[in-house]
Amino acid sequence: MKAEIISIGTELLLGEITDTNSAYLAGQLPLLGLDLHFISTVGDNQQRLIDTLRHAWQRSDIIITTGGLGPTQDDVTREAIAEFLGEKITIDQDLVKKFEELFSYYKIAMPPSNIKQAAIIPSAEIIQNPRGTAPGWWIERDNRIVITMPGPPREMQLMWTKEILPRLQQKIVGAVIISKTLKLFGLTEAEVDDKASLFLSATNPTLATYAKSDGIYLRITAKANTESEAQQLIIQREADIRAILSDYIWGVNSDTLEHNVGALLVAKGLSLATMESYTGGLLANTITNIPGSSRYFKGGLIAYTDDARAAFGFDWQLISQCGLISAKAAETMATMAREKLGASIGAGLTGVMGPAEVEGKPVGTIFVGIDDGQYSQSFTKNYPGNRLQVKQRAVTSALFELRKTLLQEGNDAPDS
Amino acid sequence: MKAEIISIGTELLLGEITDTNSAYLAGQLPLLGLDLHFISTVGDNQQRLIDTLRHAWQRSDIIITTGGLGPTQDDVTREAIAEFLGEKITIDQDLVKKFEELFSYYKIAMPPSNIKQAAIIPSAEIIQNPRGTAPGWWIERDNRIVITMPGPPREMQLMWTKEILPRLQQKIVGAVIISKTLKLFGLTEAEVDDKASLFLSATNPTLATYAKSDGIYLRITAKANTESEAQQLIIQREADIRAILSDYIWGVNSDTLEHNVGALLVAKGLSLATMESYTGGLLANTITNIPGSSRYFKGGLIAYTDDARAAFGFDWQLISQCGLISAKAAETMATMAREKLGASIGAGLTGVMGPAEVEGKPVGTIFVGIDDGQYSQSFTKNYPGNRLQVKQRAVTSALFELRKTLLQEGNDAPDS
Repeated sequence: MKAEIISIGTELLLGEITDTNSAYLAGQLPLLGLDLHFISTVGDNQQRLIDTLRHAWQRSDIIITTGGLGPTQDDVTREAIAEFLGEKITIDQDLVKKFEELFSYYKIAMPPSNIKQAAIIPSAEIIQNPRGTAPGWWIERDNRIVITMPGPPREMQLMWTKEILPRLQQKIVGAVIISKTLKLFGLTEAEVDDKASLFLSATNPTLATYAKSDGIYLRITAKANTESEAQQLIIQREADIRAILSDYIWGVNSDTLEHNVGALLVAKGLSLATMESYTGGLLANTITNIPGSSRYFKGGLIAYTDDARAAFGFDWQLISQCGLISAKAAETMATMAREKLGASIGAGLTGVMGPAEVEGKPVGTIFVGIDDGQYSQSFTKNYPGNRLQVKQRAVTSALFELRKTLLQEGNDAPDS
Repeated sequence: MKAEIISIGTELLLGEITDTNSAYLAGQLPLLGLDLHFISTVGDNQQRLIDTLRHAWQRSDIIITTGGLGPTQDDVTREAIAEFLGEKITIDQDLVKKFEELFSYYKIAMPPSNIKQAAIIPSAEIIQNPRGTAPGWWIERDNRIVITMPGPPREMQLMWTKEILPRLQQKIVGAVIISKTLKLFGLTEAEVDDKASLFLSATNPTLATYAKSDGIYLRITAKANTESEAQQLIIQREADIRAILSDYIWGVNSDTLEHNVGALLVAKGLSLATMESYTGGLLANTITNIPGSSRYFKGGLIAYTDDARAAFGFDWQLISQCGLISAKAAETMATMAREKLGASIGAGLTGVMGPAEVEGKPVGTIFVGIDDGQYSQSFTKNYPGNRLQVKQRAVTSALFELRKTLLQEGNDAPDS
């Protein structure tokens, strides 16, 4: 079946915001076996929106709109759809009552303009919006489905996953479709494709790879008559893939490496400190993006220049023998971070971020050192990319190695 | 005049990449007085692209396409335009020769498929691509202009600014349009609007405000017969605005605060060190995103927990009296960073990033301390937003205050 997306909002045509809704929805439609042929962006202009709906109606089975559902006069999506379909708008009194209750809960008088958001037409069904006052519409007419969702991405995405996706699954697929994403690091996309090639050509579950800034994602998508059958297919395929790629898989779905490292530290009752050279604090910053990270992250040292390295008590003989861009330096930094800041584990991160080489080592060379008080180890890699990409990959590497160490850590660690 | 953008690429319809080209171009068109009415996204499919061109041709004066100019078979933008216009494709031999020279310079054999990128039709003029092998097309026919550019954003943007924008200015505006952006911090968008209201209603130059993560941007756009006349209009209006808002303006055009702070440090021969608490290294990381920052950034300390604060030699009496979230703590952190890491200037940054309040101070409270060895000062603010937004604003605040200090710094500073 052919699908089409219409993004509505004058702010999109002025370049004030980038349309991320379309990319999100575009990534979801293959899960339903829908072919997306067009995305159109149009302003809050009733006539141009009607023209766009007319083109879409001629060429697509499913039309998904986002935006233009606000309470103000310039929001005309409902009006345009009603006019295009030749249907009359009425006000849903139940919805008005709900709005009044909501506003009275927050002790605000409901603006009269808000009544507009309770509009409905005969062929539309109201779709709840748990994160806003603009409900969506689900319209079925003349063998077509028109789905109307609000523009703010967090409202749209929740409405999509909770309300629209399950309906579409039952309606057009007649089946349940579930997907699960495995997140990998340490292989290129081509290497993942190669190792998983047997499963990439399978049709149920299907497998797709995506290159992201924190590694390669493998999305398993299964289709079955019931949710538990679909889950079973996913569990089986995940086991197949883990049998081949377990060394590289660090998480699933919405996991982040910094979250998973933090959760392991909490679970094992361990703490962490960092010393970085030319990543300049990005490792510590990434770790502390997680709320509650002060439970396990002691602090960090950024040894950006010789003065700072002297202040932190670097062993100059070591640096003159091995260099700052070396395994030995990374391990020493890990030990210094651990000892100075009283942490169970120290992580050291050094490398060449560019634009120029350092100590004869090319841009992209990185060394991760980890010291848990008993053993000290290091890991090196060379990454392509510009300064900010290398910084990001260096930090991802360090978190990936920390996770591996933490998984092995610990029957002798204190309970938390 | 009506403009329309067509983004071409199957990867856009699969949700693999987000279309940032359209938002970039959408932001450029108002500079030309062009009204953007539609953005369409279509895959690498010749027939569907022709259908999209047909709609665009019926309703727009200027059609701008991006993408689908690669050397492979699935890139069909040139073929679709030729078929839609009923024109015959030939190969531009000069361009083929250029490609061969380019490939031989890099000592690579030119893939035969690359010849496709030398395609031309009678009504098209070839537009150079300084960053890639896919040239653009400029087509004028039947009172319409069709502009075809490559999809990779860095290729497209350079082609736009160097080749397309000047042509459009002369062609459709018959005038030169120049814009300059002033970047401000420390006021809300409403406050900037209020203070600059007199100029916001003017028509030449026009003035527009944009709220960004590092403050408010004011874009001045002037139109005149010659570039020097337009420049003169901008200079005059910039002076008007600086007379009102100079305390808040920290840069222009592509400036970043971290770059401007770095340039001031270099110009004054000064160096910097940081100590952060709950921003967790984001300040140091932002400063070190600038290539060459090791010339002036000594290093940083991240005092995330009491253990780290003890290791750095915090004065516990001070903390118990004033709290860690205090002006005194921020100034003390600045002094400690300066002294420990041997820098001319120390910056301290502390605050409450969330999710919960600290020491009875609400989320969003931040303190910046600066110590230049002679004077120590501090600055406080409360920002709304979630954890990552508050972190970002705290860092922007610190850089903004550093810049102000550095501007006053220095007749007694050593020459660099």
